[in-house]
Amino acid sequence: MSQAYAQLEKKFKRILVLGDAAAILQWDMASMMPKGGAASRAEQMATLATLRHSMMTTPEMADLLNEAQAKGGLNDWQDANLHEMQRTHTHATALDESLVEAISRATSSCEQLWREARPEGNFKKIAPHLKEVLNLTRQAAAAKSDKLKCSLYDALLDQYEPDGKSEKIGPIFDRLEAFLPDFLQTVLEQQKDHTFLKPEGPFPIEQQKQLGKRFMDAVGFDFNHGRLDVSLHPFCGGTPDDVRLTTRYDENDFTSALMGVMHETGHALYERGLPLQWRNQPVGSARGMSLHESQSLLLEMQVCRSSAFLEFATPHISEIFDKTGPAWSIKNFTALYREVKPGFIRVDADEVTYPAHVILRYKLERALIQGEMEVEDIPAAWNESMQRMLGITPASDREGCLQDIHWYDGAWGYFPTYTLGAMTAAQIYEAAKQATPDIETQISKGNFAPLMLWLQENIHSAGSHLSSADLMIKATGQPLDPEIFITHLKNRYLENI
Amino acid sequence: MSQAYAQLEKKFKRILVLGDAAAILQWDMASMMPKGGAASRAEQMATLATLRHSMMTTPEMADLLNEAQAKGGLNDWQDANLHEMQRTHTHATALDESLVEAISRATSSCEQLWREARPEGNFKKIAPHLKEVLNLTRQAAAAKSDKLKCSLYDALLDQYEPDGKSEKIGPIFDRLEAFLPDFLQTVLEQQKDHTFLKPEGPFPIEQQKQLGKRFMDAVGFDFNHGRLDVSLHPFCGGTPDDVRLTTRYDENDFTSALMGVMHETGHALYERGLPLQWRNQPVGSARGMSLHESQSLLLEMQVCRSSAFLEFATPHISEIFDKTGPAWSIKNFTALYREVKPGFIRVDADEVTYPAHVILRYKLERALIQGEMEVEDIPAAWNESMQRMLGITPASDREGCLQDIHWYDGAWGYFPTYTLGAMTAAQIYEAAKQATPDIETQISKGNFAPLMLWLQENIHSAGSHLSSADLMIKATGQPLDPEIFITHLKNRYLENI
Repeated sequence: MSQAYAQLEKKFKRILVLGDAAAILQWDMASMMPKGGAASRAEQMATLATLRHSMMTTPEMADLLNEAQAKGGLNDWQDANLHEMQRTHTHATALDESLVEAISRATSSCEQLWREARPEGNFKKIAPHLKEVLNLTRQAAAAKSDKLKCSLYDALLDQYEPDGKSEKIGPIFDRLEAFLPDFLQTVLEQQKDHTFLKPEGPFPIEQQKQLGKRFMDAVGFDFNHGRLDVSLHPFCGGTPDDVRLTTRYDENDFTSALMGVMHETGHALYERGLPLQWRNQPVGSARGMSLHESQSLLLEMQVCRSSAFLEFATPHISEIFDKTGPAWSIKNFTALYREVKPGFIRVDADEVTYPAHVILRYKLERALIQGEMEVEDIPAAWNESMQRMLGITPASDREGCLQDIHWYDGAWGYFPTYTLGAMTAAQIYEAAKQATPDIETQISKGNFAPLMLWLQENIHSAGSHLSSADLMIKATGQPLDPEIFITHLKNRYLENI
Repeated sequence: MSQAYAQLEKKFKRILVLGDAAAILQWDMASMMPKGGAASRAEQMATLATLRHSMMTTPEMADLLNEAQAKGGLNDWQDANLHEMQRTHTHATALDESLVEAISRATSSCEQLWREARPEGNFKKIAPHLKEVLNLTRQAAAAKSDKLKCSLYDALLDQYEPDGKSEKIGPIFDRLEAFLPDFLQTVLEQQKDHTFLKPEGPFPIEQQKQLGKRFMDAVGFDFNHGRLDVSLHPFCGGTPDDVRLTTRYDENDFTSALMGVMHETGHALYERGLPLQWRNQPVGSARGMSLHESQSLLLEMQVCRSSAFLEFATPHISEIFDKTGPAWSIKNFTALYREVKPGFIRVDADEVTYPAHVILRYKLERALIQGEMEVEDIPAAWNESMQRMLGITPASDREGCLQDIHWYDGAWGYFPTYTLGAMTAAQIYEAAKQATPDIETQISKGNFAPLMLWLQENIHSAGSHLSSADLMIKATGQPLDPEIFITHLKNRYLENI
């Protein structure tokens, strides 16, 4: 190991530790901070971000990276670490300061105006600002694509999904897009005569919290290394040794907070399971957004909506709310958690219709970034796509292209990771069940250890040692295959197949 | 204004903003963080501290300070700001890195061992470690006294009480020490036949919290810029725009948490009232620990134990706990909150006996730092002093020289600020009442605005513009005078004078 590499480890540790500090402050901002603290907190966050950026972009850092690369002599993990350092460095140095600042100004004013335009359903009002954001984002994409030797869109995708490529995603999404409309029709047809009972509240927040914590505990969340709190937009933040989850409660409906908590717990267990000996090194960090999302969806969608889980969970739910009756049966919860219903809003979508929302956004954002489409064309393209895939057309852009913050806030290239995550989850869960056949029997008894051990060993502890693609092959024996997700949907949603 | 000065403002702002971030993380550590987060938080705190220190001690910083000084052309506040910058810089650069590290190592291991030695009452066990801490602290004092041109002890005092001097404190404490024994005897004699009723609990935490918040609100604490939470050791932290108070509750006794909350609220109102236009500049920061403590004690001791306050507060206390009867009268609360009783433990001491605890520590720590006494002599000297001033001798060092963390943790020179703060509080409150004669009438009606406006205008908004001594003269018309505190004690604790 060269001296240059050793110095890089020190420098990156410092940068990542400051990132940890920022993550706790971010959590505090969303869950604890009084409103009047916003301005001083913004100063703190900006100062930390600037510091980290300037520590990353010193000439010395570039020299050390080159020297470490030239000297070599690294073991497998160190080598992967150096590769991740270089990747981070490339992204940080690709944009000159004036572009970074212009993007920050444009997204912040666009996002602010979006908060007005959305409730009004007024796309025209926001369109010029979105154009400006898109224009600057394309400049950033061009600068990054130059360094990464890839397309404009893939340069943006790479920020969230390292080594992600449109040419891989395209065929996968095409397959899903071809499958979904007919499948959806069949499911809707079958579910037409279904009825389920909505459990009647109110469900006091204290009891909902107790229920969430009981299930978090059951799946292996360690409250000595994390907390559960409340925020407007639920998230999983903090650091691997101090994971901060949030949720929000609705006293009339416990089901969504409960699944939300399990979703964030999936993220949390991934973070907790990252390799301890590589803490605060790039290779010890989570692999990318698809894999992160796969861990939350594996828990929320694959596990917690399975018959095995509902068999374990139903008596606990009844007990904590002290309710019984037909609405409180495994059968009813199963029907309730498997209802499929095309809707306009992505974040409210069920497992079957969700991919349609993502594919729509992916195709539009890719066309916009690649210069094959203009901002003005978004509403019509959006509505056409919704009609084609889900058979519904939003009455207003409020329920259409204005619903998500991502584009207005500059997060282009993020959307595909949601559905890649869902497919990855299905494939990983399938591999885990094949490796340890009694996983579901154990889950039905409340024993999540066999599943969690498998995930820890095969996914979490890998950190960023392998690319997502290589990790999939190592853990599941094959590259990401949409057929596994499709089979999962068929098994769960089609009767008598 | 020179360019050098403008650059200094930028650099100091950055350092102080990072200090704000650290303050929020510190609060989180004490009130929210799960235990398992300790190691990663320690990394974050150390990284932030190192960064701030290295930003402060660059050669460029020294050059800019010299240049700004030479160029001049500053207004009054800028000039004071530059003076505070220089003071901070002097403290930061006085010690070489190896000494800083040695002190950090020695205090951290001494403090750890102290946690064992204290419950055992085993001073012998800790003495060699304390010797090491003292030895290193004296080296630090020597380095700083060289730069500050003052005695060893004053160099340490200056860290907490800028421009504080033993030659000023000595006569003041001598006067108090001469006064206290006889006065205490008289008060004890008079209180001999007093009886008061202890309000009977339990007092649910939710109600105690409600009560604390009601009084915080009444005195002007703005919950849009702060919070009240729980921690093992209550404190006031956070930033001026996001003040984080903590307390701890005892379900059998609401009185101590209530006064604790008001104490921390006094600190908080000072922080909130610091000059907005000088946020994150040294001159916009709190003046020193005596003045900070004066603001907490002004609220807790001068105001909240006054007849005026108890007249306002008693009905609220009765109402919130839903209790009535003789224990819940103004008369009984007055007797209860004015009980004087010599005891061994400083933090449990009443207003009359508290100064004895501080004077004892001040004299011992000064002698130890100046090399006039050895660590081995502490227990005997401690006990002799307790007997002479309060007429009691601790049975074990657990209740004697092992009770406080300060010396074991390296905080030498801090103790005098407690009693300087109490005297400062008495003098400031007296001045406020003379300037606005109906302050107490208004307080008895629950209107704290006249007092708070006076404090804001005369104390809080001054930041670090003047020295503590000059601020006292400006705000109260004279230097700190122990007679005002003595008169306050006589008025409150002697009957029929």
